Amino acid sequence: MEQSSIGMFDSGVGGLTVLKEVEKELPQENIIYLGDTKRFPYGSKSKESIIQLTQKGIEFLTSQNVKVIVIACGTATSQALEEKKKKYRIPIIGIIDGTVQYIKKKEDLRKIGVIATSGTIRSRGWEKKLKEQIPDIEVKSKACPLLAPMAEEGWTNNEIARLTIREYLKDMHDIDALILGCTHYPLFEPLIKEELKNKVEIIHTGKLISQQLKELLKGLGEESVEKKAGTQIYLTDRETNFIQVASVLMENREIAKKIEEVQI
Amino acid sequence: MEQSSIGMFDSGVGGLTVLKEVEKELPQENIIYLGDTKRFPYGSKSKESIIQLTQKGIEFLTSQNVKVIVIACGTATSQALEEKKKKYRIPIIGIIDGTVQYIKKKEDLRKIGVIATSGTIRSRGWEKKLKEQIPDIEVKSKACPLLAPMAEEGWTNNEIARLTIREYLKDMHDIDALILGCTHYPLFEPLIKEELKNKVEIIHTGKLISQQLKELLKGLGEESVEKKAGTQIYLTDRETNFIQVASVLMENREIAKKIEEVQI
Repeated sequence: MEQSSIGMFDSGVGGLTVLKEVEKELPQENIIYLGDTKRFPYGSKSKESIIQLTQKGIEFLTSQNVKVIVIACGTATSQALEEKKKKYRIPIIGIIDGTVQYIKKKEDLRKIGVIATSGTIRSRGWEKKLKEQIPDIEVKSKACPLLAPMAEEGWTNNEIARLTIREYLKDMHDIDALILGCTHYPLFEPLIKEELKNKVEIIHTGKLISQQLKELLKGLGEESVEKKAGTQIYLTDRETNFIQVASVLMENREIAKKIEEVQI
Repeated sequence: MEQSSIGMFDSGVGGLTVLKEVEKELPQENIIYLGDTKRFPYGSKSKESIIQLTQKGIEFLTSQNVKVIVIACGTATSQALEEKKKKYRIPIIGIIDGTVQYIKKKEDLRKIGVIATSGTIRSRGWEKKLKEQIPDIEVKSKACPLLAPMAEEGWTNNEIARLTIREYLKDMHDIDALILGCTHYPLFEPLIKEELKNKVEIIHTGKLISQQLKELLKGLGEESVEKKAGTQIYLTDRETNFIQVASVLMENREIAKKIEEVQI
C-alpha cells in the first residue's frame, strides 16, 4: 500500500484554513504543506510572477514524493493552475473546480458573488470557470485587497472589519451565494453573514476541496489506510508572523513544532 | 562635470513619496528609481530576505552608474542598510539618519513615536539609532501593518481609515513628535493630525532625506548643474497596480511613460 503524502501549496499562511478542512475530512492522510512566506502575498503580483512561483512550489512538492497536489491559494489557483496541471504526472487540483461543481448541482444558486484578492479577480478565473460550466449563471466579482492583511492583524470581528466588509459587499445583497475566493476569508464569516442578513449562502472553498480530494483519492485507489503520521509544514521564510497568524487560523492548535524552513 | 544619476531603491511604490520630495528639492538631478514590485511588500519578510533583496536592488543601481543610492523604504533601511552600506564605494543613505539628526537638533522633541511596518518595528532600527544619538530620548513604537495596503486601496480619508488610525495611535497622545516610518504614511497625515489634535509634530522622512541628500551631494561636489534629463522608473514586475497607486502617491502626475520592467 502506497503511503505517500498529500502536497499542499499556498502563498503563505492562508492555506491553513484549507489544511484544517483536509485534516478533518481525511484524518488518516499525511500532509506536506509548503507556504511561500518569503514572497507572500501573491494577490498583488502579476500572472507571470505567480506562475513562476507556483511552479517552484509544485517542483518542491513533487520532490517530496506526494501523490496529489492541492493548490490551497485562491490567487495561485486562478492564475497558474491551468497552465501547470498538465505538465506533471500527479494530479494537481485547486480551490475552484470543486466549488464550481457544487454550484452546478445546486440549481437555486445562479446569481453568484465572488470576493478575492486583486490578482484573482483580475484573472477572472472564477468567472470563466463558472460560465463555462453553468451557462445561465450571473457572476458579480469584487476585489477585497484589505481583508487578508486584516485577518493577519487579527481584526476579524471589530468595527473596522465590519465597515470594511460593508464597503466591499455593498453590491452583493441580491446574490444567492457568495464564494470566499481567498483562504483567509472564512475568518470573516460571522460579519459577512450579519452584513448579508443570512440571506446568502456562504461558500467555503476549503470544505469543498476536501470533499473533492477525498473522491479523487478514492477514484485513484490511493487513500491512506494506516494511522496518520502527521502534517509537515515547510516555509520559504520562517521568521515571519506565520506562527502568530497560524494560531488564529488554526484556532490555537499547536503547529510551531511542525515547521521547517526550505529554500525553493 | 559628472552627470550620473541618483539611485533610489524601494520595495515597490511607496518610495514614490520620497521621489516626489527629492524631485522638488533637487530639480536638476537625474533619478533612477527601482521598485521591487515582484516581491513587495517587504514589511512582513524576515531580516535575511530583506537584506538579500536589498542587495540585489543596490547591485542593479550600481550597474547603472549612479553617484549615490537612497534606500527609500523604511523596512529596507531599518533591516539592511547598516549591513550593506560599507560594502560599496558609493554612498548609500536611508530614511533614518537624516530624521535622527533633525530630532537631535530640536531639543523640544524628546518623546518620540514611531509608526511603521511590522518588519521595521521588529528590527528596532529607529529605536536603536535614536537612542544611540540622543541618550535622553524616549521612544514608543507601533507596527501598523494595515496602513500601507489601505493607502494602496485609496482609503486614506474615510471612516475605516479614521478608526484604523485611532486604534494604532491610541497610545501616542503624549508624544512630542511622530515619525512616519513607512513611505506610504504621509497620505494619512490629515487623519493623523486630526487624531492627535495637532499637538504632535508629524515627521516626514522623505523631506528630511531630500535635505540630507542635497547636503551630501554638495559635500561630495557631485551636484548636477545641467538641465535635468528626468526620472527613470524600473520595476521588477510591471503588471501590478503600481500605476494606479503611483498616481495617488504622486498626486496624479503622469509617470506611466517612464516605467520599464527589469529582472534582478
